[in-house]
Amino acid sequence: MAGSTFGKVFRITTWGESHGGGIGVVVDGCPAGLALKESDIQKELDRRKTGQSKVTTTRKEGDKVRIMSGVFKGKTMGTPISMWVENHDVDSSKYELIKDLYRPGHADYTYQMKYGMRDYRGGGRASARETAGRVAAGAIAKKLLARHKIKVIGYTRQIGPLRAKKIDFREIERNIIRCPDKDVTDKMIDHIMKVRKKGDSAGGVVEVIAQGVPPGLGEPVFDKLDADLAKAVMSIPAVKGVEIGVGFEAAEMLGSECNDAFILKGKKISTRTNHAGGILGGISNGQDIVVRLVMKPTSSINKTQDTVTLKGKKATISVEGRHDPCICPRAVPIAEAMVALTLIDHLLRQQLSRLKK
Amino acid sequence: MAGSTFGKVFRITTWGESHGGGIGVVVDGCPAGLALKESDIQKELDRRKTGQSKVTTTRKEGDKVRIMSGVFKGKTMGTPISMWVENHDVDSSKYELIKDLYRPGHADYTYQMKYGMRDYRGGGRASARETAGRVAAGAIAKKLLARHKIKVIGYTRQIGPLRAKKIDFREIERNIIRCPDKDVTDKMIDHIMKVRKKGDSAGGVVEVIAQGVPPGLGEPVFDKLDADLAKAVMSIPAVKGVEIGVGFEAAEMLGSECNDAFILKGKKISTRTNHAGGILGGISNGQDIVVRLVMKPTSSINKTQDTVTLKGKKATISVEGRHDPCICPRAVPIAEAMVALTLIDHLLRQQLSRLKK
Amino acid sequence: MAGSTFGKVFRITTWGESHGGGIGVVVDGCPAGLALKESDIQKELDRRKTGQSKVTTTRKEGDKVRIMSGVFKGKTMGTPISMWVENHDVDSSKYELIKDLYRPGHADYTYQMKYGMRDYRGGGRASARETAGRVAAGAIAKKLLARHKIKVIGYTRQIGPLRAKKIDFREIERNIIRCPDKDVTDKMIDHIMKVRKKGDSAGGVVEVIAQGVPPGLGEPVFDKLDADLAKAVMSIPAVKGVEIGVGFEAAEMLGSECNDAFILKGKKISTRTNHAGGILGGISNGQDIVVRLVMKPTSSINKTQDTVTLKGKKATISVEGRHDPCICPRAVPIAEAMVALTLIDHLLRQQLSRLKK
Amino acid sequence: MAGSTFGKVFRITTWGESHGGGIGVVVDGCPAGLALKESDIQKELDRRKTGQSKVTTTRKEGDKVRIMSGVFKGKTMGTPISMWVENHDVDSSKYELIKDLYRPGHADYTYQMKYGMRDYRGGGRASARETAGRVAAGAIAKKLLARHKIKVIGYTRQIGPLRAKKIDFREIERNIIRCPDKDVTDKMIDHIMKVRKKGDSAGGVVEVIAQGVPPGLGEPVFDKLDADLAKAVMSIPAVKGVEIGVGFEAAEMLGSECNDAFILKGKKISTRTNHAGGILGGISNGQDIVVRLVMKPTSSINKTQDTVTLKGKKATISVEGRHDPCICPRAVPIAEAMVALTLIDHLLRQQLSRLKK
Repeated sequence: MAGSTFGKVFRITTWGESHGGGIGVVVDGCPAGLALKESDIQKELDRRKTGQSKVTTTRKEGDKVRIMSGVFKGKTMGTPISMWVENHDVDSSKYELIKDLYRPGHADYTYQMKYGMRDYRGGGRASARETAGRVAAGAIAKKLLARHKIKVIGYTRQIGPLRAKKIDFREIERNIIRCPDKDVTDKMIDHIMKVRKKGDSAGGVVEVIAQGVPPGLGEPVFDKLDADLAKAVMSIPAVKGVEIGVGFEAAEMLGSECNDAFILKGKKISTRTNHAGGILGGISNGQDIVVRLVMKPTSSINKTQDTVTLKGKKATISVEGRHDPCICPRAVPIAEAMVALTLIDHLLRQQLSRLKK
Repeated sequence: MAGSTFGKVFRITTWGESHGGGIGVVVDGCPAGLALKESDIQKELDRRKTGQSKVTTTRKEGDKVRIMSGVFKGKTMGTPISMWVENHDVDSSKYELIKDLYRPGHADYTYQMKYGMRDYRGGGRASARETAGRVAAGAIAKKLLARHKIKVIGYTRQIGPLRAKKIDFREIERNIIRCPDKDVTDKMIDHIMKVRKKGDSAGGVVEVIAQGVPPGLGEPVFDKLDADLAKAVMSIPAVKGVEIGVGFEAAEMLGSECNDAFILKGKKISTRTNHAGGILGGISNGQDIVVRLVMKPTSSINKTQDTVTLKGKKATISVEGRHDPCICPRAVPIAEAMVALTLIDHLLRQQLSRLKK
Repeated sequence: MAGSTFGKVFRITTWGESHGGGIGVVVDGCPAGLALKESDIQKELDRRKTGQSKVTTTRKEGDKVRIMSGVFKGKTMGTPISMWVENHDVDSSKYELIKDLYRPGHADYTYQMKYGMRDYRGGGRASARETAGRVAAGAIAKKLLARHKIKVIGYTRQIGPLRAKKIDFREIERNIIRCPDKDVTDKMIDHIMKVRKKGDSAGGVVEVIAQGVPPGLGEPVFDKLDADLAKAVMSIPAVKGVEIGVGFEAAEMLGSECNDAFILKGKKISTRTNHAGGILGGISNGQDIVVRLVMKPTSSINKTQDTVTLKGKKATISVEGRHDPCICPRAVPIAEAMVALTLIDHLLRQQLSRLKK
Repeated sequence: MAGSTFGKVFRITTWGESHGGGIGVVVDGCPAGLALKESDIQKELDRRKTGQSKVTTTRKEGDKVRIMSGVFKGKTMGTPISMWVENHDVDSSKYELIKDLYRPGHADYTYQMKYGMRDYRGGGRASARETAGRVAAGAIAKKLLARHKIKVIGYTRQIGPLRAKKIDFREIERNIIRCPDKDVTDKMIDHIMKVRKKGDSAGGVVEVIAQGVPPGLGEPVFDKLDADLAKAVMSIPAVKGVEIGVGFEAAEMLGSECNDAFILKGKKISTRTNHAGGILGGISNGQDIVVRLVMKPTSSINKTQDTVTLKGKKATISVEGRHDPCICPRAVPIAEAMVALTLIDHLLRQQLSRLKK
């Protein structure tokens, strides 16, 4: 039973490989009546696309999206919305060289083991290119969330050893790495450029905040909001960990430190701190949702690495090709999309929790 | 759309509240022909139950499991396996005091917001007592995995600031906190006892290793093995973060450090390191699966905390009752269960990935 | 991937065998706030239970239901509702005689082929006793539907060659076969008694009407209301066919006869006829939903029949035991339950179809 | 929660409207390693397409399929297979006339009620054109089934009052209405032509046989094979009833007549008759699967009919446009596709029922 579908109520199914007929997504479960046009989608895809700056791969994909169904006279119809991004800048030739080699850190070996074969061109289905479909669907999720005054904002929190200390949302889209702290932005860029020069790559941390989420989202005991967020972002290529709120810091805290005291803000119930990251018992509590994910350094590096061949012989490999030296800047819109998709799914599901009056 | 079901092929549905008619689970999708008796389940429940030692709550639940269906003449029949653990040591009276108060760190407020009401006795459905059903189902998963020589082993990796440095599997069940490093065990126990004496609680980290997992498990692009593991463990009460392999350390690594070189061990393909934690591209690669989760300090503490009432008035609260000062020791079998349930689901799903010869 | 769950939003999972620890059902997705007590459930179970009259089996099951979770202070909590009916009048001894024989018309052979084994006592999981769980869940569905003024009414439309011509709802529960036409009731009962005397059994047709269903229920293109109703009733043991509205008569109608003209009733849009049975394009149109299902004659008959043994030898069999000579009267509440479960699932799903203003 | 996905393991999601960017389907869960080319799909689409003969609509769609993903070097990769059929012969102008009218027998009214709007061009999503996606996916299902020597064969069993009495498979594709009985073929064609001349339409019955299905397919108690087949075919536009085996005839049979005696054919267990239509207890028994479905007469007729407008005023309508006077001939490949999709889903699921040795 394959796994190309995400969400239970707002459901997306992605398809496509790096070098095939394109990348697509079918969104089933978008309510009828939402104003939607291709430029709503394109805007988000442009944030994800390649070739944006010196810290991204040089592969140039226009990533022009086409809405194939589900929209009529500028409105969603309640029927499946199919979106398609054609592949253009495809050069499969250099992948012929590695069709019998397993690239370390990549999914070549595991796809081969799983399916007994693989599309080795550009990583096939395992390529991060697949995430274009997620971002397209996420753009619709964001539009729906906006109607409820929910906003999803992502940024690069850390690159290598360098951390953003201030979170100034206005800074994020002003720099090429989507860093919210202008004091550290240039250092981060320098770090990436230095690493790239050595033929190496850097890891980092992306953080996503969701503002305006009402209390009540999340379905105990398995489809808790934090559980579904964890799945959502862990399914992004290269993610190796996820935290909600204080995350791993909780290990060293005492209960009296970690618990967020309930307070009143006017007549509204709030909490003094937000260590919980907006989620208690798997359900949103009205505070900001805070999700953090770690991206491993890009697996494709020019350095020579040990590996083995398809036939089980020792070999070495140096991955040529066009790669991001650090995936964080482009991972930001992807992470936002996955958080938005999770939230809209739960916002819709929440409507079913109680009897209507 | 509620969320009480986990797994797609090996599916479990749990039910029950802390102080109601008991806790139960229905397992649908267990293949026919597995030898199964109540003692197989009881063994795991006993590891999870309360009152095991001085570091756990004093609530005494026998947690005797009864298999209600699906097993005939000692074998599973392919039909749903229903298991039931009756509640016994139930004292709801003291919860009357807090029925109009929101305990900080607990799900009282969020359940109230979600459903417009809540079962305030012992935390109701949000009680960790619900996890008895998971552990019961996990015991079946473990038996199935054992047939494939897959073993799932959990332990307490960290309590407060104290970390296990050696991982000696034989130590785990020899001490009351399930620590694999005997050099640090006593210090951890001391730490917990000291914290408890102050009416406070401690956090920690639990780690789970799965040995013998064949390559090929995991379903791109959303039901990746790491994504489903993340969801599985994040759905455990009090978990605030999850890591696979190196986890958040990846942020500071270079690609050349983080990539696991492929090597040959005899004729078998292996990797020199296991930074990936056994998963590449969302699919198992044959190395040990390594999952780490952080448990926040128990929310129930005796210290006085600020809160508000159901009616939105300021108040203070000090949670009496019987609580674990640190949840890690009892979280170990729960985390194992969730990892085992995820693995068996994917092991079964993997059978469908390729054409049979 | 087993199939013990029905519904997508209002989801039920049944468990249990004819002679095991009982029959149960877990309802996940019932909204919080519904007043619910055991007598609400018991009322429906009593309509389904054995030993009601001379036309039903003499097995005597009290079928007392116990609500195990999900209800607190008389209200549903939004958490899973677990219900359990214990087995009592169990005499497995006579099934020892047929453990190596395949009863014609029964599922003995197919369960053996599917699972490689079977619980031969009383038909195991294939026993119609399993439907007690459906009826229990259906009782909750009916309560929810009643809040929306939706009523589900079933009756015996035909037994053997005898058809009800008038549909007088008041008659249904006044006679032991649930026939709505008093002119034919006695003849039907006579027919059943005669057939039973010969050691044989009779088939029949059950019809279910749902009144008050608003337009808009049903999810194209696969989860159409008629498609889900067809699945729902076809999953009842012994059902071999299902019709919506005119059903198979449509084959001989012209389009000009079959189409239901739209008319105005006051300001409300209605149709002049209801050949469609209340469903157009898989979506309810506001007219009565009309579902008809055929029940094959009970497979268990005293007459000698040819069969084979587990080991593949020729044999004859005459099924002793306590059986209904015609299943229709007791199938009525089961069919009602399945229709109610389908409707509530779609009523809840329908809330997600459009943007809220 | 929308309903554009069918199947649990071999899952298809269709998208598209009659007059939009095309019709498509994403197949997720097709095992890796199946030889597949576009002509495999095209062959089946050609049987469904319009303009085949004088008894079908004159709309001329080339219905050329394009495989967009999931196939590499002529083999399926285990990844989603996306297929797209572009719309060409689209003339939306005449639908402007009916955008404020509800066509009797059509889904105009119910879509409007459900979604608050509709794509009125060519029936939008409710158009039978959507089934092109099903037929494309069904072609893959058939290829997989063929590897297991399973064959799915459909034909027109009845048109108006005329029934096929002989079932000669060789005849089916020799005539334009797919009738298996040459003695009645010409009469059926005459009947359709006469009805069309009057501006009217005819109903009929389609039957599908699946040969070679092994015992063991079907998942009690809800995903029974007959239940899923019933859903599958009832989801086809215009179907108002479905029968398995003897179907509604069972009402008038005695148990001793209806039960299929088990017999030996050589060493193989078989049944003397096949009243059950190959399914007992919801599981295949190794005999031919027999499914019958009734198609109502095409709703689009030229005759003047009463209706109402969107604004609730009385009106009359005569549906111009290009329509099939009887849908049966083109429904045959659609019904085959839905049966094939159901069977492959259950064939894959059946692999999970028992422990592997």
